[in-house]
Amino acid sequence: MKAIHFDQELRCVDLPVPRADGREVLIRLSKAGICNTDLEITRGYFGFRGILGHEFVGVVEASNNRSLLGKRAVGEINAACGRCQYCQKQLQRHCPHRTVLGILNRDGAFREFLTLPEENLHIVPDSISDEEAVFTEPIAAACEILDQTDIRSSDRVAILGDGKLGLLIAMVLSHTRCDLSLLGRHPAKQALVEDYGVHLVGPETAQKLSRDFDLIVEATGSPAGWEQALRLVKPRGKLVLKSTFHGSVAFNPAPLVVDEIIVIGSRCGRFEPALELLEAKKVTPTRLVHHTLPLDQALRAFDLAQQPGVLKVLLQP
Amino acid sequence: MKAIHFDQELRCVDLPVPRADGREVLIRLSKAGICNTDLEITRGYFGFRGILGHEFVGVVEASNNRSLLGKRAVGEINAACGRCQYCQKQLQRHCPHRTVLGILNRDGAFREFLTLPEENLHIVPDSISDEEAVFTEPIAAACEILDQTDIRSSDRVAILGDGKLGLLIAMVLSHTRCDLSLLGRHPAKQALVEDYGVHLVGPETAQKLSRDFDLIVEATGSPAGWEQALRLVKPRGKLVLKSTFHGSVAFNPAPLVVDEIIVIGSRCGRFEPALELLEAKKVTPTRLVHHTLPLDQALRAFDLAQQPGVLKVLLQP
Repeated sequence: MKAIHFDQELRCVDLPVPRADGREVLIRLSKAGICNTDLEITRGYFGFRGILGHEFVGVVEASNNRSLLGKRAVGEINAACGRCQYCQKQLQRHCPHRTVLGILNRDGAFREFLTLPEENLHIVPDSISDEEAVFTEPIAAACEILDQTDIRSSDRVAILGDGKLGLLIAMVLSHTRCDLSLLGRHPAKQALVEDYGVHLVGPETAQKLSRDFDLIVEATGSPAGWEQALRLVKPRGKLVLKSTFHGSVAFNPAPLVVDEIIVIGSRCGRFEPALELLEAKKVTPTRLVHHTLPLDQALRAFDLAQQPGVLKVLLQP
Repeated sequence: MKAIHFDQELRCVDLPVPRADGREVLIRLSKAGICNTDLEITRGYFGFRGILGHEFVGVVEASNNRSLLGKRAVGEINAACGRCQYCQKQLQRHCPHRTVLGILNRDGAFREFLTLPEENLHIVPDSISDEEAVFTEPIAAACEILDQTDIRSSDRVAILGDGKLGLLIAMVLSHTRCDLSLLGRHPAKQALVEDYGVHLVGPETAQKLSRDFDLIVEATGSPAGWEQALRLVKPRGKLVLKSTFHGSVAFNPAPLVVDEIIVIGSRCGRFEPALELLEAKKVTPTRLVHHTLPLDQALRAFDLAQQPGVLKVLLQP
């Protein structure tokens, strides 16, 4: 089968179909999405070597649980030990012994067949298309903010960054009915969420914003976002950090202390609320899709995904 | 009256007794405490110019509310406008129009007579001595952690820093019955809270601690504390920041995101729980007192307060 392997360089390789042993289920890939984390891995971050990819939808091809056979499925990316203190508290996503699909000690989804533990799978309702379902993982990451905070309709909320994740977060948070702004530099990208009732704020207007936001979601993917977030969050406000990037930020922590700001690191989320939003058509992620390419054109797909103005690039067998 | 004034240099000056107008109450000083913030102001931080001091206990000398006359009182240091959105949410400590006793646009407590708004005052129960009561403000700052977090008896908690604030925090948090460690470099200081059931951890043992703390309280007053805190807090753990210092910290925010750490800035607290702890003799702050000097020896008192091994230095008229 074809697989997209990274080890110092990205290559399309031919590998045997993996076996579905024990808890592992074999899934035939339908679609996979290229995420910024994949791009960062190809730049050497995280130190991952193996088959890339963690956003996918597919069909169960082999499983010890016969009721899964032929079902369309998406999968949570953290494969946990099931025994440690985190797993026992239902925090499998933080299991210190976990492997992570296409990110940590586990081959990813950019291949014709992949495997994941049965407990990671979620069956996709018929009303959700493959092109929608492939966004379940990043939408779950956006939904994680709802699990970590208590956003009220009276809150002023700003999302920093109009990339893929920022746009999905805007779609998700719009349903809280809060006063929601999306700060970014790309009017064409921002326009994709205009019908969600989001205030679209460009760089010039952003400069004039006062320090009056109850919640800031930092999704710029750059150190500059941290500084802007601290400039806009009000005393006793919250700052949700979504960006992971290689490198450091330098800042004076005194204002955090004096103004009793709460900073919340936020990563993966539960798949259930993401699938509910997709099923109810309350999010429309397919408008982010710019290209869909076959697996064996993955190198070109990765190039496209790094072009200015390009949002989501999908891969399919 | 004698007053300790800072403007580029610290001086004992002679000033008229202030007037108690409107909401302001005139208080005759009994005792005042020198805090690290006072020391930092004399190093040029915060840009404050005026009479220093914010930890005090005194006796009401003049007030439009005659029921206060002759009462012993301590006072919350943030004098708020009473009208803004923060004041209306009972968050006077974050009022953007506030003045702060001896820190921001309001002369402080290092003088024979000071003034504060009536609503800032708390009457001191007879069973609390002046030497205990002068610690109400920093104990309230320690109690603020209890208002901001939900510490359980099963939690592993580490306080970083065995200075004045770290020791008071250790006394306060010990009553949660959590598994509490105090990390520091001064065995003699740490020994002051040994009878509170706190694990006393020196630098060598600290190096060997694993990343297994539910909550870290950073009270070292230095950038190094931030790094140590991130090294010890477990995934999904909390990090309470108490240190305000001049300067920046540099750090990679990715682990905050990946491990979904929550960072909580923490400053002043309510006086009620602090007075309750003092009245119940559940905290014993007077063991931190190393020297008590008259106001006109304030310069010597400030020198002493900066000596290695010295904890609290008090001033009195």
